[in-house]
Parts: sequence; C-alpha cells; structure tokens
Amino acid sequence: MTHLKDQAAMNLEAVREQKPLVHNITNYVVMNTTANALLSMGASPVMAHAVNEVEEMVAFAGALVLNIGTLSDPWIASMLAAGKRASANQTPVILDPVGAGATQLRTRCAKEIAANVDITVIRGNASEILALRHSNAKTKGVDSIHSVEDATSTAKQLAVELDTTLALTGPIDLVTDGKRVVRIENGHPLMACVTGTGCTATAVAGAFLAVDTDPVSAASTALAYFGLAGEIAAETAKAPGSFQVALLDALYTLSPEDLRSLAKITEEE
Amino acid sequence: MTHLKDQAAMNLEAVREQKPLVHNITNYVVMNTTANALLSMGASPVMAHAVNEVEEMVAFAGALVLNIGTLSDPWIASMLAAGKRASANQTPVILDPVGAGATQLRTRCAKEIAANVDITVIRGNASEILALRHSNAKTKGVDSIHSVEDATSTAKQLAVELDTTLALTGPIDLVTDGKRVVRIENGHPLMACVTGTGCTATAVAGAFLAVDTDPVSAASTALAYFGLAGEIAAETAKAPGSFQVALLDALYTLSPEDLRSLAKITEEE
Amino acid sequence: MTHLKDQAAMNLEAVREQKPLVHNITNYVVMNTTANALLSMGASPVMAHAVNEVEEMVAFAGALVLNIGTLSDPWIASMLAAGKRASANQTPVILDPVGAGATQLRTRCAKEIAANVDITVIRGNASEILALRHSNAKTKGVDSIHSVEDATSTAKQLAVELDTTLALTGPIDLVTDGKRVVRIENGHPLMACVTGTGCTATAVAGAFLAVDTDPVSAASTALAYFGLAGEIAAETAKAPGSFQVALLDALYTLSPEDLRSLAKITEEE
Repeated sequence: MTHLKDQAAMNLEAVREQKPLVHNITNYVVMNTTANALLSMGASPVMAHAVNEVEEMVAFAGALVLNIGTLSDPWIASMLAAGKRASANQTPVILDPVGAGATQLRTRCAKEIAANVDITVIRGNASEILALRHSNAKTKGVDSIHSVEDATSTAKQLAVELDTTLALTGPIDLVTDGKRVVRIENGHPLMACVTGTGCTATAVAGAFLAVDTDPVSAASTALAYFGLAGEIAAETAKAPGSFQVALLDALYTLSPEDLRSLAKITEEE
Repeated sequence: MTHLKDQAAMNLEAVREQKPLVHNITNYVVMNTTANALLSMGASPVMAHAVNEVEEMVAFAGALVLNIGTLSDPWIASMLAAGKRASANQTPVILDPVGAGATQLRTRCAKEIAANVDITVIRGNASEILALRHSNAKTKGVDSIHSVEDATSTAKQLAVELDTTLALTGPIDLVTDGKRVVRIENGHPLMACVTGTGCTATAVAGAFLAVDTDPVSAASTALAYFGLAGEIAAETAKAPGSFQVALLDALYTLSPEDLRSLAKITEEE
Repeated sequence: MTHLKDQAAMNLEAVREQKPLVHNITNYVVMNTTANALLSMGASPVMAHAVNEVEEMVAFAGALVLNIGTLSDPWIASMLAAGKRASANQTPVILDPVGAGATQLRTRCAKEIAANVDITVIRGNASEILALRHSNAKTKGVDSIHSVEDATSTAKQLAVELDTTLALTGPIDLVTDGKRVVRIENGHPLMACVTGTGCTATAVAGAFLAVDTDPVSAASTALAYFGLAGEIAAETAKAPGSFQVALLDALYTLSPEDLRSLAKITEEE
C-alpha cells in the first residue's frame, strides 16, 4: 500500500500534469478565490451554473464541486441536475454543505443533494455535517460529543449512514469512510481569518478526486496539501490580506517533495 | 459622556470579543471583499440572499447590511423580507443605497426599503443620499449645495425627514441624526481607487452597530476606524492592488489604543 | 497616420483624464477583478445587470462590456437589451464570448448577441471566436489551422463574416477588422495562472474604446497596455497571488511614456 504521504506527492504531481477540469457550482463569495486556487495548484477551473448548460459542462469535467454557500432555488435545481449527470458518468462529486443546520433551506438542500447524487466526499465542519443526519438516525448530536473518541465514532457512523466519505475540517482534520480513519494536522489559524478557506479546501479536494480514485486518500492528501500551503503562507504573512495572497503563492510554489516530507497525515491502525 | 475616540476603541474591542454575526445582502462585486474586511476586524460575516431563508438567517444576526449595488427584483424582495424581520427583532439595519439617483430601479428600491424597514443608518455619498428625498421634500438638491454649511444643514434636514442617521462619506465624512453632527477626517485618496471601499465602510459600520446601540456613535467610530486603516495601508502601499491587501491587514492589526489616539472625530458643539 | 505606439500612450492618457464610465454586464468570477482593473487604469466601472435598469445605465456609459462567463437566461435578456440600446446610441460594445463552443447555451447566446447588437470588438481566444462562425460559413475550424498564416487568414475572413473587429488573444495577440492586421507581443505566462485575465483584457479594451473611435487601434493598444502591465508585474511577482496584486499596481503606475517605448505592436504592411 502506498503511504499517504507518497500519495499526496503523486496527487499533486498528477494535477499539475493532467490539469483536470474542475466544474464548480459554488457560492458568489468564493468564486474568484477558488478559481484562483485551482489555477495556482495547476488544475483548470470552470464555473457554470445555468440549469440549461450544467449537464453539458460537467460531461467534460474530471470532478464536480457543489457548494451551497449562497443558495437559491434555481441554483439548487442546477446542482441536482449536474450532480445526477456526474453520478451517471461516474465523475467524482464533492459536496460542501455550507451553513447546513443554520437554515432549513440549507439543511433541506444539502440532504436533497446527498439523497439524489452519488456524492464521493462531503467536506464541512462538524455541525454542518451532523446536520445531514437522517431524521431517524442513531447518530448523536453536536452536544453529546465530548471527546476525540466521541467525534471519531460519530463521524464513522455518519459516513456509513450517508454511504460516503466525510472530510471534517477543524484544528485537526478527520477523513473517514466509516472504516478507515485518517487525521491531518497541517494548517494555520490565519486560515480562519480569510473568507472561503473551507470552500477552497473543498475545491482543492475536487481536483485531487479527479486524479485519485480513492476518496479517503484524495480528500486527506488534499487537506494536507492545502494546510501545508497555509503553514508556508504564514511564514511570511502575518495578517489576513497578505496571508490570502501568500496562500495562493504557496499552492503554486509548493513542490511534491515538500509535500511528501511535511504532510502530517496519520491513518488509524 | 464617553468621548467618541474612547468609544471607537471600545467598539473595536467589543467586536473582537463578541465576534458579532453580520448578515449581508450585498452586491456581487464586493461580497468577497466585505466578508474579508469583517473577518479581518474580528466579526463573523454571513452572506445569504434567498427569500426563503433570509428571515431565518437574520434572526441570528447582530446587524443586517443591505446594499443595492447589483440589484434585481428577487434581491429586492429578499432585502425587504430580511429588513422587516430585523426591524421586528430590533436588530440594527444599515442601508447602502449604491447608485441611488442613477437609475429609477435603484432610487425606487432604496426608497422602498427606507419606507418599509426601520433603518438605523444609511451610508452613502451625497448624491446617493439626496436621491432618497421624498418627492415633496423641502431638502435642496445637489446643485444648490455650495458650501460645507449648506451640506451640513441639508444632511440634518434629510436625517429628520427620513427619521434615521445618515453617514455621508467623502473627503470628510459627516454623520448626523438631525441633531448631533459628527465629522470624521480619517482616510486616504487611494481608497477611491479600490472597488467597494464605500460598501466595506458600510459593512464595518454594520459590525459596530452590533455592539453599540447609539447609531451616531457606531457609524462615526466605524468610519474613523476604517479611514485610519486606509491611512496605515497607505504608509506601505502606493498603488491599488497592494493597497487593497494592506487595508485588510490594517483592519486586523490596528489596535484599540491606536484608534483612540489617531481617530480624527469631531462632534459639533 | 499616428503610429500605434503613440496612440497607445494617447489612449492611456485620455482614459486617465476623461475617466470614462464603463458599463459591465459580466460574470460573477471576475466582477471584482475587472472593476479594480478599470479603477486602477483610471476608468470608472459600473456593474448593473437587471433587465429593468440596464438600458438606463448604459445611456451614461462610454462603453459597454458584455461577458458571458457565468450565463443564465435572465442575464442573456439583459445583455441583449443593453447591447441594443448601446447600438442605438452608437456607444461602443465589446463582447467576450467566454466558453463559446463549450456548451450550446454559450455558443447560441454569443451568436444571438453578435446578430442583434452592433458589436465593435469581440475579444476571445481562437476556439471561442471560431465558435461564432455562421453554420454555413466558409471559415475553417480550429483543427484545420496549421500555421500563423492559416490563423491570420481565418481571422480576417471571420472578421468580414461577422462584420466586426476581432481581438484574438494568446501567446501573440492578433487584432483584425478583415483588412488591417495588428500583432501584439506584450504579456507574460503568469497571466494564464490568474482567473479572469482574459476578461480583464476585454474590460481594459472597453475603456480604450470609450476614448478611441478606431476599433483596431483601441483594441490593439489596450492589449499592449495590459500585456505590458503583466510584464512589469512579473518583474517582482513570481507566483499567481502576488502577481495578481502586482498586475493591478502596474495598471496604475504604468506611464504613457513607458507604454510608448515598451509596447510591442506591429501592423502588417
């Protein structure tokens, strides 16, 4: 079995060589940022959201990113249409359920996408992902999670329930498909001071999914790469404006070799 | 009475401690910029515009920012729905009537919001704010304003007419509720070379309104803080691209103590 | 006849003096970037897309930019309405057919705009522009172009067929109205690593069209100016994040004299 650190380096190299087209139906706030992150890492972003073109567009794509950050009904219809076509084509789909749990529209939309699309990975924070539980689920709520062990066992249970791979990001990231559990400890606190870093992590993982058919490996190596770029950016930038600029630069300059040696990825035995 | 310079420092400190949620229904051009400005200053931005979620979302917010910069009918409906709910909840609302006076749609929309929502502060330039006059108003037009005295007396009259606090920005900013008049002289000419600095001033004032119940004080201290960040940015950045980056950095690094000593806020006796 | 290098300097100077209003109906990804590019060069950007205000807004503008990068039906209606009004007012219109050829919606929309609006310049890459051929056209397809001579002759033929000026950008830019042929060799490879540089080139050309009534001269000098800004940015910035910032700075600091001496514009004899 290839070690995940080696896989991280291989995935980054593959993205730069293959320049996969990543189709994003994402929120207005981060469109520019995520397009630039994808370009900086070597992928080819395309943004297209009209219901009368998304199925045609996604057919060219190596991965589809669905992000519900600034939702409205026409966009939900487009996300469903693109997602279903991607599923039919066996194109990987990553869902970012931004704000699920905060409003009924977001929770309902995220659940509807999860129910109708063959989602490869869901990337979100703990409360967003817990909001996707089935109403009759046995999964515990946020309030009943008191330890790392609780969180891990809940995440594994939820991955099985939703039949997908979950990428929970936070101070320590956790990726699980219900069986395997991987922790990623790269990252920097300044990432939380820039809008859309979560959304960008999702887009970066989308690019890795286009070159790595193993969802656990693709998601965890992508989070290590993105987190490491944050660490490198923080070496020179000490405030959010310059950090955002340095983060894009780091996505571009970070070499596969650096990623292999500095990725902090641990798979649970 | 707390001096406004002290209040400026207290407001900045309060935003950083309380991290108020600021709900923005704003234009496409500045969504990323204003979200980043709010994060840099310590607040928590959320962007949500769907008519079927804005009332639920604004219920969590410490302030609501309505900005008509890239308007269309569905967004007007959402702004009205969110604004009415905020009014009912006594959540402060700040309106940025971008381009009012330029097209009938913008003028009509801004007036409709002003008539149906309990607006706490309107932030705009002189011509945008004058466009909000009632058709039978006694307020003079732009062409009849020939001096600082004319401008001040017109602004006071219009604040009474609209029953709100006005924050008119320009080389010197003026805040008035019709009785009190405050002038703010912080700022830098490069701010006019970056898109959305007016919109960002509005968002920053939204965050201050979430922690300061006095609209005149919240708006004038926010403008001093934002203007001072511009001055600090201009110390290192000499052109718009790097200035925009340095402005976000300055919002993050500027201390309450610096704001207290460098704010140029004067209240008319 | 004024040499094109002199004209480039004159156009830049004219934009900075006249500060033309450039009305953009453009895609979500680049709205902020292109607004900032226009401000940095000295123009006045406005973004307005609602069908019930675009005709009123475009009446104030020195040029109209139509960009189909994130298309949907309501936006197509607005582009057509604004474009027709601009044509009636003899306001120059520049079209950026982003992704034409990739989906039927984009190809159809770009052709519909070209058929109904008096387009002054179309700015795109070769495949986007070739997608605009009439179905019964004699113009060759992308696959049949094997040399610079083929490309030039195809572009000339297509400019005649579409009765407009074409600005094809790539490693070497080509501007032709079917008779005159101008090549521009300014630019830098990092421009392809930042999202929306093509869209920004279009917006910059829009501003030049507002001050220069000759479409071939306006488009080719704008591309030289924008490409030279890229070269200057690349002197200090080596990765996409900092390059994007430096590019805006260069648009602001580049002098007409520098442009006159460093523009690489060649008109075919």
